[in-house]
Amino acid sequence: MSLLVIGTVAFDAIETPFGKTDKIVGGAATFASLAASYFYDKTRIVAVVGDDFPQTFINEFSKHRIDTEGLQVKAGEKSFFWSGKYHNDMNSRDTLVTELNVLADFDPIIPDSYQDCEYLMLGNLTPQVQQTVIKRLIKRPRLVVMDTMNFWMNIALDDLLDTIKMIDVLTINDEEARQLSGEYSLAKAANKILSMGPKYLIIKKGEHGALLFGEGKMFAAPALPLEEVFDPTGAGDTFAGGFIGYMAKAGAVSFDNMKNALIFGSALASFCVEKFGTEKLINLTQEEISERVAQFVSLTKFEI
Amino acid sequence: MSLLVIGTVAFDAIETPFGKTDKIVGGAATFASLAASYFYDKTRIVAVVGDDFPQTFINEFSKHRIDTEGLQVKAGEKSFFWSGKYHNDMNSRDTLVTELNVLADFDPIIPDSYQDCEYLMLGNLTPQVQQTVIKRLIKRPRLVVMDTMNFWMNIALDDLLDTIKMIDVLTINDEEARQLSGEYSLAKAANKILSMGPKYLIIKKGEHGALLFGEGKMFAAPALPLEEVFDPTGAGDTFAGGFIGYMAKAGAVSFDNMKNALIFGSALASFCVEKFGTEKLINLTQEEISERVAQFVSLTKFEI
Repeated sequence: MSLLVIGTVAFDAIETPFGKTDKIVGGAATFASLAASYFYDKTRIVAVVGDDFPQTFINEFSKHRIDTEGLQVKAGEKSFFWSGKYHNDMNSRDTLVTELNVLADFDPIIPDSYQDCEYLMLGNLTPQVQQTVIKRLIKRPRLVVMDTMNFWMNIALDDLLDTIKMIDVLTINDEEARQLSGEYSLAKAANKILSMGPKYLIIKKGEHGALLFGEGKMFAAPALPLEEVFDPTGAGDTFAGGFIGYMAKAGAVSFDNMKNALIFGSALASFCVEKFGTEKLINLTQEEISERVAQFVSLTKFEI
Repeated sequence: MSLLVIGTVAFDAIETPFGKTDKIVGGAATFASLAASYFYDKTRIVAVVGDDFPQTFINEFSKHRIDTEGLQVKAGEKSFFWSGKYHNDMNSRDTLVTELNVLADFDPIIPDSYQDCEYLMLGNLTPQVQQTVIKRLIKRPRLVVMDTMNFWMNIALDDLLDTIKMIDVLTINDEEARQLSGEYSLAKAANKILSMGPKYLIIKKGEHGALLFGEGKMFAAPALPLEEVFDPTGAGDTFAGGFIGYMAKAGAVSFDNMKNALIFGSALASFCVEKFGTEKLINLTQEEISERVAQFVSLTKFEI
């Protein structure tokens, strides 16, 4: 039994109202696997980097007991690079640079030792690659979670619609849910998207929390009102990684476990945004996570 | 002991993507007092209308056991009239017409029989008039809740700042909290606004619920994801009225009671938006309210 995360492992250069970074390590699989590692110790990644990717960060994965056999290192090539600048409200950003590099022809090779995968996290990538991973797993995982974004809705909608038929949980943000469904009301959007294939839908609303739909039920997880959002990069991936990591730890795929997974994912994401990149995420303790989760409990608990 | 609501009792003409109304009854005090009446049967209003205001609606107040001794009817004058058109997303609207009419020189006269007021809801009005009401009450009420809006921040900031020093709970929306505090982070905004005088702050976030700050604590109430938001007019007033009505019923001014009051206020507001104007709000049953509140409980409850 194991948890497989597929996605980008890459470089980001980020500018926010609080400061600016040089190239730092980012990528959906990086954030998601680190987040998952706090709940589940059989986390593995399938991703591709160039030989410019620092060995020190591969060691960081190992320190978090994340298996990197599936991390392809392409000699003579460069890692995927994204650079972006956040606006003052931190809710919107401009992409300054996107260099696909090794990602341009990424073939997601699944090591044989990964075939015991029971929990599959498909981080944001082309739907075609996400689908290939599902097909290459001999045994269908117990839970397949997929993240995607509006970019793929714009340029690869058919592939996306094909792929979401094969998964259990789709995670997208509110604007993307509206775009994918053509419905403004999120309740209506959720019904429509659930009719497209996924059994569960998570709508990420950033500073407004997240909604879970499925089994005819709804659940709303709040976001913790933070004094400072330093860098939102990777928050969605961290949330998704924390979500599936908690589910892998919990075992049973139930709505109740998913509710808790939403809270743990939100707690991890709330740490992620407090520093640049993975800085906060690589150095968490279980005690810090428990304390943060307790804040979520206190934030939402009432007795009627 | 009684609950006094001050605010507008007026006419609205509303256009939404779902339809259009002629002049229908609206106004902050209308929505707030009707909402409060479901929890507390000593609700009273101070407001002003012209003699164009229908007696049938004054009877509606009486049916809800709302005392209208403080409702001034000005012979030969016209009631306040607002007309607005909502955009497709229902989160923004254009004001088409504002006719102050009787509101232009509204003097909020407090009948002697209202001097036992223990709960005071200051609906959205000029801060000057809101302040006059506080001053005219011989005994300071146990709980003073005040609603306001960006309009008064723009044209009467000094009066507004004076008035919020005299109250217990301020209710504003997220954009207004940012404007009033000059802080983008709602956590920071809340701290700053609480330092201006109010003991508690409620930040209304529309479809994203509401946040309560005070006593060094935070609470997040979700909004129920609705299939249809038919007409958002009056939702904030309904929320505030439900909030203070529940507090009056509960008795003790505590953070725990306020949390529940937020949920009951949100439940009432979720009904309000399902039809035009007060249509839904005038015909609720306690059973419907209990069922709706149960949906809020189920929406947010988790066991960690």
